[in-house]
Amino acid sequence: MSITPIVKAILDKYESDNPGTKANLARILMQGHLGGTGKLVILPVDQGFEHGPARSFAVNPAAYDPHYHYQLAIDAGLSAYAAPLGMLEAGADTFAGQIPTILKLNSSNSWATSNNQAVTGSVDDALRLGCSAIGFTIYPGADDVFSMIEEIKELSAEAKSVGIATVIWSYPRGGKISKDGELALDVGAYAAHIAALLGAHIIKVKLPTAHIEQPEAQKVYAGTDWSNQADRVKHVVQSCFAGRRIVVFSGGAAKGSDAVYQDARDILAGGGNGSIIGRNTFQRPREEALDMLAKIVAIYKGQA
Amino acid sequence: MSITPIVKAILDKYESDNPGTKANLARILMQGHLGGTGKLVILPVDQGFEHGPARSFAVNPAAYDPHYHYQLAIDAGLSAYAAPLGMLEAGADTFAGQIPTILKLNSSNSWATSNNQAVTGSVDDALRLGCSAIGFTIYPGADDVFSMIEEIKELSAEAKSVGIATVIWSYPRGGKISKDGELALDVGAYAAHIAALLGAHIIKVKLPTAHIEQPEAQKVYAGTDWSNQADRVKHVVQSCFAGRRIVVFSGGAAKGSDAVYQDARDILAGGGNGSIIGRNTFQRPREEALDMLAKIVAIYKGQA
Amino acid sequence: MSITPIVKAILDKYESDNPGTKANLARILMQGHLGGTGKLVILPVDQGFEHGPARSFAVNPAAYDPHYHYQLAIDAGLSAYAAPLGMLEAGADTFAGQIPTILKLNSSNSWATSNNQAVTGSVDDALRLGCSAIGFTIYPGADDVFSMIEEIKELSAEAKSVGIATVIWSYPRGGKISKDGELALDVGAYAAHIAALLGAHIIKVKLPTAHIEQPEAQKVYAGTDWSNQADRVKHVVQSCFAGRRIVVFSGGAAKGSDAVYQDARDILAGGGNGSIIGRNTFQRPREEALDMLAKIVAIYKGQA
Amino acid sequence: MSITPIVKAILDKYESDNPGTKANLARILMQGHLGGTGKLVILPVDQGFEHGPARSFAVNPAAYDPHYHYQLAIDAGLSAYAAPLGMLEAGADTFAGQIPTILKLNSSNSWATSNNQAVTGSVDDALRLGCSAIGFTIYPGADDVFSMIEEIKELSAEAKSVGIATVIWSYPRGGKISKDGELALDVGAYAAHIAALLGAHIIKVKLPTAHIEQPEAQKVYAGTDWSNQADRVKHVVQSCFAGRRIVVFSGGAAKGSDAVYQDARDILAGGGNGSIIGRNTFQRPREEALDMLAKIVAIYKGQA
Amino acid sequence: MSITPIVKAILDKYESDNPGTKANLARILMQGHLGGTGKLVILPVDQGFEHGPARSFAVNPAAYDPHYHYQLAIDAGLSAYAAPLGMLEAGADTFAGQIPTILKLNSSNSWATSNNQAVTGSVDDALRLGCSAIGFTIYPGADDVFSMIEEIKELSAEAKSVGIATVIWSYPRGGKISKDGELALDVGAYAAHIAALLGAHIIKVKLPTAHIEQPEAQKVYAGTDWSNQADRVKHVVQSCFAGRRIVVFSGGAAKGSDAVYQDARDILAGGGNGSIIGRNTFQRPREEALDMLAKIVAIYKGQA
Repeated sequence: MSITPIVKAILDKYESDNPGTKANLARILMQGHLGGTGKLVILPVDQGFEHGPARSFAVNPAAYDPHYHYQLAIDAGLSAYAAPLGMLEAGADTFAGQIPTILKLNSSNSWATSNNQAVTGSVDDALRLGCSAIGFTIYPGADDVFSMIEEIKELSAEAKSVGIATVIWSYPRGGKISKDGELALDVGAYAAHIAALLGAHIIKVKLPTAHIEQPEAQKVYAGTDWSNQADRVKHVVQSCFAGRRIVVFSGGAAKGSDAVYQDARDILAGGGNGSIIGRNTFQRPREEALDMLAKIVAIYKGQA
Repeated sequence: MSITPIVKAILDKYESDNPGTKANLARILMQGHLGGTGKLVILPVDQGFEHGPARSFAVNPAAYDPHYHYQLAIDAGLSAYAAPLGMLEAGADTFAGQIPTILKLNSSNSWATSNNQAVTGSVDDALRLGCSAIGFTIYPGADDVFSMIEEIKELSAEAKSVGIATVIWSYPRGGKISKDGELALDVGAYAAHIAALLGAHIIKVKLPTAHIEQPEAQKVYAGTDWSNQADRVKHVVQSCFAGRRIVVFSGGAAKGSDAVYQDARDILAGGGNGSIIGRNTFQRPREEALDMLAKIVAIYKGQA
Repeated sequence: MSITPIVKAILDKYESDNPGTKANLARILMQGHLGGTGKLVILPVDQGFEHGPARSFAVNPAAYDPHYHYQLAIDAGLSAYAAPLGMLEAGADTFAGQIPTILKLNSSNSWATSNNQAVTGSVDDALRLGCSAIGFTIYPGADDVFSMIEEIKELSAEAKSVGIATVIWSYPRGGKISKDGELALDVGAYAAHIAALLGAHIIKVKLPTAHIEQPEAQKVYAGTDWSNQADRVKHVVQSCFAGRRIVVFSGGAAKGSDAVYQDARDILAGGGNGSIIGRNTFQRPREEALDMLAKIVAIYKGQA
Repeated sequence: MSITPIVKAILDKYESDNPGTKANLARILMQGHLGGTGKLVILPVDQGFEHGPARSFAVNPAAYDPHYHYQLAIDAGLSAYAAPLGMLEAGADTFAGQIPTILKLNSSNSWATSNNQAVTGSVDDALRLGCSAIGFTIYPGADDVFSMIEEIKELSAEAKSVGIATVIWSYPRGGKISKDGELALDVGAYAAHIAALLGAHIIKVKLPTAHIEQPEAQKVYAGTDWSNQADRVKHVVQSCFAGRRIVVFSGGAAKGSDAVYQDARDILAGGGNGSIIGRNTFQRPREEALDMLAKIVAIYKGQA
Repeated sequence: MSITPIVKAILDKYESDNPGTKANLARILMQGHLGGTGKLVILPVDQGFEHGPARSFAVNPAAYDPHYHYQLAIDAGLSAYAAPLGMLEAGADTFAGQIPTILKLNSSNSWATSNNQAVTGSVDDALRLGCSAIGFTIYPGADDVFSMIEEIKELSAEAKSVGIATVIWSYPRGGKISKDGELALDVGAYAAHIAALLGAHIIKVKLPTAHIEQPEAQKVYAGTDWSNQADRVKHVVQSCFAGRRIVVFSGGAAKGSDAVYQDARDILAGGGNGSIIGRNTFQRPREEALDMLAKIVAIYKGQA
């Protein structure tokens, strides 16, 4: 594949990474319908771990099968597919070389009694399964965030040494953070910045609201109109080393198609790199999901 | 042994595993009277650890001797024998090569003050004792489940690298889960799914009741009649990657033979792979146990 | 030394062990006046760690000197001498090759605030000191028993690989276990069984009383007359893989000679392998202790 | 599989081995049409390495495909299939669990300028490929035999620790040994003895001639009539610890069927354990090879 | 076993050794009919490796069986049995704990083209087989002696750290040494001294002749009458740190009984510690060998 100037420019920003890691970032950035545009859409399927299989897949029973998701991501021309160990193992051979995969290395579940996750895989697993990246969630604000940070510190250092990229899901929660605060602009930008500081190659955060959570932060956010989502995206991107790191956004719980499209338009307008979109696709019938993803791709290409 | 098409199809689903691990899965699936059918019956004897020797064996004193269980499993034509370190060590040489063994790597006891288990063996032990698989219990829902998950993550990764299969006993308990909830359908399917996500080759859960435990899950289970046990089995199997993973069921505490047989019929009807049946066999006189196991085998062969 | 058929039969039961470990078991079983009988008497001196020097040795000041105990064990024709690191180091050269030693690898002390012990030595220490076995205490029932189990799991695996035997002191205490329960028959048999399951070669428990502690166990013990100590010993031996493992009993605190002799007779009658007897010997004047030990040896030989 | 008394008696002779290694020996001894008889026929396919593909396979082009040999060994009901790394890798998944495999860990080639071989695989390879044994060639007599011995010393120690058996091909050549001497009775018995001394579980040598090579050995062989091949086999078996080790014989270059059958009859009569037969089978058309192997199997069963 | 003052005095000379190593030396010195006398007779059986099985065992075919030698050493009341890996593995379990064993870690063969030996085992092997010592041959004078020295340096250092003793066979040959010189007094004393300098616990040399090989050494040996073998033994013992190290002598090739007895008398008279005697025993019929060994033992006890 011939790397486009846009992708080359993005890769150049990861200036301390070895060529192996860059090659894996390039694979993601050159894959699928958005290949070469610097934009990306990732399909994540860890909802079964987080919420149980029935709540995740009963609405679209074909999705109980791990192959379904690999095929959906490939057929929709997405950039990468992210899932926990067992889900990738169940299709890694069949789909070897067909789509970059991201091994999600930690997961929580519905009964978790603390804001933390269990580590469920390793960089060695990522290598043997041919993954382009590892994924890891941190909960800024949580009592356990230091240990989560120390876990990803070890894992990403090992991953970088063997040429595998790191994606950090940075989800503020717990501790002093209110429920509204989890989506607050100041908190989201801060969470994204922490992920960047931890050395993530790709940062995944939720689309923030205009709420400002921290009293100490009110002053700096005051006097600016944050009602436009694209402006909030722009602020998050700015918080990730002024755009030197790839940032993708999730839209949260399943919602209407139009809301999903508007999110994508705002991410594009704000300079975000794309979407990570799970339940909004695999919880729809396959044809409907393919249509939605085609539309999102078109938006990121500036064609819709 | 010539692998049957049914067994070959099962092995093909473990697509990321190395031939060593598949050979050990094949040994289990080709062993005994059910060899080649894709069905299996495993004899587990860890009750001495869990409940003490007298409560486990006094009713049938011959069962105090570890050789008794090896011989029972062999004479009944079962698929594998699972036990903790000391139990296997006490017969591993005498019965070397006669029946696949599963080294149970963690165990609890009657005085445990937390929902956790102690790790009592290693993958190196499994290799030197010639085991085909390691076994490990997790307690989804328990406060300590993350550390249990991280233990099996390490052990199963090591086991996979040396060609040994992994069996996960997934038993929900503790934390927010009620006593009834431990056997609830939604909880059981979720627990099985977690085991699959952790990369288990064989998943062992309890037969679930029709109870739905989680408020958030009520909606997806509502409107379906779950009164038929076979339907519940089918849902658990579906939750294990749509049947891509072997699932065996335990019936819990000792009970009447007819109930045991009905369980096996329901497991068969629901597409489960078989039974793991301990107390219901070794707590009966040997001849009676052999008769019962012969009947169960016949059920799984569709002959009873 | 020419192994007797009795000893050979015992060694054959350790069927998964390498010849190095069997040679060390043989050394213990062929040592001293009971050599070749399949019976053994071990001198343990870890009371200084557990209760302090004065409470342990002031009554017989010669016993402050580590050489005293080596010499006592040798002169009494005992089977082995067990002590913590420093005690063995202080005499290991002088008495090299004269009596099998057991390096006690963990110890508690009078100020312990939890039911746990500190690991105070290693398998490498056992090798350089020429020990035939390592010794380790677990406290079934205690909150910390899982971590104790995980410690001995590591240590015994290493010991087995280099040909050193493992002796587990299994002393129920803590958690849900009452003071009376620590000596209860059901609890003691369970504790012995756990040691066997952990892969111990020699199991050391206390002589149990007729008390039954666990409500769930009442049923299986009911209807049998447990007033005879020999019957209780027999049940413990049965609980150690139906006699496939060596079981030795301690009598607990210092007591009258006649009680000690009766204990030995009951252990013999119940099929136990012998005694581990510390305070009852070294807290007596040397000559008195030698007389007592001579009598105990005679009992085990069926001569008294 | 239920071990026969004959096989159990053989396993018992490997008295220092762990149960894992014995289980793998048992797998070989219980496999195929000779399973349980204590006799075995192994298919080795390393001729491509030794002589090049065309000289090995052109006469029967189907044999260029590694699957051909797996299938031939299975269909003929042989005991095991031995080949170098790449040959096993090419079929290990398809045939996982269907026939015990032996990973040949060193190989020479037609251009070798010394009597030595290159090590081409590892014990880790054997584990991930699910092999029951490793195979290794030594050249007693060669200048490089010491380094070859030191290689197999390391490999077999590692293999034994993880439960994998060791097969040594002991082929005298080089140094002071004449061409005739390579097949001499004294030399062959000596070569077999060296393999036994190195700790091999299965010893593979060539059928010796009546020639006596070493001047110093003439005396001990003189006065006995060695013209009968069965007597020579008997002497080799005796040289392998008086029959405590499994010995299999190769017949060397491709030859007529009747000669092959006579070899098998002589091996049987002399107390050898069987044949390792490569070129004489896969260089014949498949049906012809199957017929020949069926006849050899029948001979070892005493039925032909 | 109660160490005698003679043995205690010998052990005290190994003043830098740890108690584990001393315990193993003690085991050898307290074993058998010479136990406690400070004298020892060792049975070595590596002739099969050195000269081939027929030249070693054909004269007494029972000796093809490794068990034969264990049993002979035990029945004759010898001090230890030394053999290569495979020979020990074949009986290590059956005879565990019955006689101290010495794992011979290197061996040559009849076709060796250099004065060197192949390393055929490890200290780990010695531990798992329960050996009291490792044995190793060096060839002072040979071109390869430096590499042999460096091998035993590594092996003995490891052995000492885990409490295993080291026996060095020091056999001058090669290089500038003439055939007569191999048995020369100056050469033999020098070879023994090198073994002592390498840290051997037990030094094994051949009985030297009165020949003086080295021109540079003529002067110091001149003027003394070396015709008496006991004097030559005395000089060798002197050369081993003035008697601070155990020295045993071999008599070389099989010879008449009277010569063997005279050798023993001379060794005793010269202050040597005993004999290592292989072919002269196992190449005789068992009863004859037992008689001879009984006589040798009696000589060392001063009773014959």
